[in-house]
Amino acid sequence: MNNSLPPNKEHIDSEMVKMEVNLDDISGELLGYVMDLLFEAGANDVYYTPIYMKKNRPAVQLQLLCSEQKVGTMKEILFKETTTLGVRYYPLSVHRLERRFTKVETKWGPVTVKVGMLEQNAVQKAPEFDECKKIAQQHDVPLKTVYEEVWKTMESST
Amino acid sequence: MNNSLPPNKEHIDSEMVKMEVNLDDISGELLGYVMDLLFEAGANDVYYTPIYMKKNRPAVQLQLLCSEQKVGTMKEILFKETTTLGVRYYPLSVHRLERRFTKVETKWGPVTVKVGMLEQNAVQKAPEFDECKKIAQQHDVPLKTVYEEVWKTMESST
Amino acid sequence: MNNSLPPNKEHIDSEMVKMEVNLDDISGELLGYVMDLLFEAGANDVYYTPIYMKKNRPAVQLQLLCSEQKVGTMKEILFKETTTLGVRYYPLSVHRLERRFTKVETKWGPVTVKVGMLEQNAVQKAPEFDECKKIAQQHDVPLKTVYEEVWKTMESST
Amino acid sequence: MNNSLPPNKEHIDSEMVKMEVNLDDISGELLGYVMDLLFEAGANDVYYTPIYMKKNRPAVQLQLLCSEQKVGTMKEILFKETTTLGVRYYPLSVHRLERRFTKVETKWGPVTVKVGMLEQNAVQKAPEFDECKKIAQQHDVPLKTVYEEVWKTMESST
Amino acid sequence: MNNSLPPNKEHIDSEMVKMEVNLDDISGELLGYVMDLLFEAGANDVYYTPIYMKKNRPAVQLQLLCSEQKVGTMKEILFKETTTLGVRYYPLSVHRLERRFTKVETKWGPVTVKVGMLEQNAVQKAPEFDECKKIAQQHDVPLKTVYEEVWKTMESST
Amino acid sequence: MNNSLPPNKEHIDSEMVKMEVNLDDISGELLGYVMDLLFEAGANDVYYTPIYMKKNRPAVQLQLLCSEQKVGTMKEILFKETTTLGVRYYPLSVHRLERRFTKVETKWGPVTVKVGMLEQNAVQKAPEFDECKKIAQQHDVPLKTVYEEVWKTMESST
Repeated sequence: MNNSLPPNKEHIDSEMVKMEVNLDDISGELLGYVMDLLFEAGANDVYYTPIYMKKNRPAVQLQLLCSEQKVGTMKEILFKETTTLGVRYYPLSVHRLERRFTKVETKWGPVTVKVGMLEQNAVQKAPEFDECKKIAQQHDVPLKTVYEEVWKTMESST
Repeated sequence: MNNSLPPNKEHIDSEMVKMEVNLDDISGELLGYVMDLLFEAGANDVYYTPIYMKKNRPAVQLQLLCSEQKVGTMKEILFKETTTLGVRYYPLSVHRLERRFTKVETKWGPVTVKVGMLEQNAVQKAPEFDECKKIAQQHDVPLKTVYEEVWKTMESST
Repeated sequence: MNNSLPPNKEHIDSEMVKMEVNLDDISGELLGYVMDLLFEAGANDVYYTPIYMKKNRPAVQLQLLCSEQKVGTMKEILFKETTTLGVRYYPLSVHRLERRFTKVETKWGPVTVKVGMLEQNAVQKAPEFDECKKIAQQHDVPLKTVYEEVWKTMESST
Repeated sequence: MNNSLPPNKEHIDSEMVKMEVNLDDISGELLGYVMDLLFEAGANDVYYTPIYMKKNRPAVQLQLLCSEQKVGTMKEILFKETTTLGVRYYPLSVHRLERRFTKVETKWGPVTVKVGMLEQNAVQKAPEFDECKKIAQQHDVPLKTVYEEVWKTMESST
Repeated sequence: MNNSLPPNKEHIDSEMVKMEVNLDDISGELLGYVMDLLFEAGANDVYYTPIYMKKNRPAVQLQLLCSEQKVGTMKEILFKETTTLGVRYYPLSVHRLERRFTKVETKWGPVTVKVGMLEQNAVQKAPEFDECKKIAQQHDVPLKTVYEEVWKTMESST
Repeated sequence: MNNSLPPNKEHIDSEMVKMEVNLDDISGELLGYVMDLLFEAGANDVYYTPIYMKKNRPAVQLQLLCSEQKVGTMKEILFKETTTLGVRYYPLSVHRLERRFTKVETKWGPVTVKVGMLEQNAVQKAPEFDECKKIAQQHDVPLKTVYEEVWKTMESST
């Protein structure tokens, strides 16, 4: 690996919030769209969990993580785009690793690898999904083969 | 245990059908109601499984079991009450135990116990849920305590 | 729409609590009953999430929302009616919309619609499930058709 | 509603196949991509179900529906793009409604509505998701508001 | 029941923490192993919930409960053994019952029963799983039969 | 890679059966044990899916795959060890890849890699989990690091 990009220091963020809504009166079709809106508006993460509610209703819990500054924006989207009459939330802390980015040269071209640093040690290495996907499509190879190639190349050069 | 009721012989039923629909454009609220309709119309079982469909949609798979004779009835309910444009189904076999019913005398009164017989051996004993629930409510005791009492009484007398 | 009932102001409730128990040694049969008890005792919401616990155990997480005043009552039900040896909980805030109720006249009679107001704007409109269900049963029409009719009538008159 | 497009007759298709693979050694990241490939190659539906496998492994079941003619194509994608060593499958029948398409004129322009016909009766009406989504984005209105408007307009004109 | 062992008083523990990570780029195979490591390192509980993340990814949420003192240890395992770049956590309270242990004499030998005491009342009785399992294996009887026998014996003697 | 072991030819097995039972009256604790028994008795796979059944019951579907010869054995375990009164099943076909086994030499010693062959092409390569786990434990390295090392070594030598 070569070519380090500017780091993003390891830290504990104590100004994060988790928001939740339980939804039993909206279709999955609309929820797929709401996820996109929440990400575009700055949510750090958005995900769905299957739940069972009263009266035999299969339902969905929408959860999202955002900074305190985004609470108002997120609430507005949830109230306008879903069917909920209430949004609940609570604060939490997030310990984030320093993130570094390096490039790996594969036979199909360069791929960025995100490296997670815990107290100066590289504990995570994640090839960028979108770049691997583009290679898989352009070169008509299985995506898992692209990942395998990145692992091989990354390791040999470290 | 005393008081055997007429048996229901152990057998293999080869005329059962499983039906399935995937639903991403209906709410859980409506699905809770549909389950009741299908049972009332004679489904042997109806249940929901959480699934994930395309375009990030959290969705629900409705599955039901019914006899071949009920296929038309079930399809009609599914088409009228859900949003599906297609219903899929396939045959399956069901090996059913002989069912016997006995009575157990608890301190709160009698409770029916359903007994499953595999080649003449009692392999299952299930206190009837609705009777236990009624006792729990009438006598203001935890439902699990009612079950425990039934187990104790049933075993002592066998 | 006509006929507004008294409002229930938009507010942030900071005295709510979420309680959780993980359950791998109780049957679903008992859990269906426990949900009813918790609602009757004043829980704002109760729901189940499928989880996987140690030793290959498919299990269930029971979660409920209640006001701080109800914490003792909820704990008592959980300890008496489930098999848990511990109940965990934490505070959270809930932003609730103002709720107004209006009546819509359908060809089968009136249906109440709950309207959620965000800063004086109607962002949610939810026909009352139990009223729609009653119409569906009395008039032998699909429940989704009742909803469609309510939407049509509601919109035309607004 | 006006403007009927050519119908697609109600029928029972007895040449459909369901395929399944259980996956505990691949990441969700790759599976999101595999779903797209299977749809592009002609699967009628593809969906994921959460399952629990041996050794405490949270895992995923991939299921797909395709015509008998597509079995070879689907298998090849599954073997090349996932980590499975086996693909299982079985035949099933699908009862499909006749599909008609009509146009509804909303204040933001026309929207196609797919109509499902059961023995000449319209039992399903589904506004096209992608058209509604485009309107929501272009006119900056909630997607659920677009659907409500389509329902209102559709019903008034029928 | 006889033979009480030293009690473990009912109390509210306000120094517990819940940690969470969402994982879409790791296999279930690795996660089965991570659960064991977290328990060995002192987690009070560890469990997996199926979630759906962006880009159609079926994923897993790992949650764990631990004391404040264990936060550093748990984070280190999560960062080293999973693929996450961030770990989130928040404090919670746990109301724990007093735990007593008694012995029940079955026809296959003694079995420990854990008893949960709520304000001096026995509200939970749980036969120890590992002891029942050992009996089932050694005596070649169904595990459910061992539990039934323990219930019967326990109740008769109380 | 070197050291090929005897192959296991690619083939379609048309004598497989899937069995299913829905369980709402048994605990997860017992189900964890039942999975082990079914594998020991020769099931090809056993897995659990979360389902929702009538009366608000969170429940579990047990599914297993076995050869036709094993149907009787599996049924007997299901009837004796679970609480079901019926077992349903249907035939399916499984297309299995040829399996080859090779050895990879890592710095911690050899690891077996299972290779899946589709028409003479290696489409799957899976390091043996149990061997990787043993190395992780003995050398106190993260399990994911062992996998990465196997990938690197495997690729360099092929």
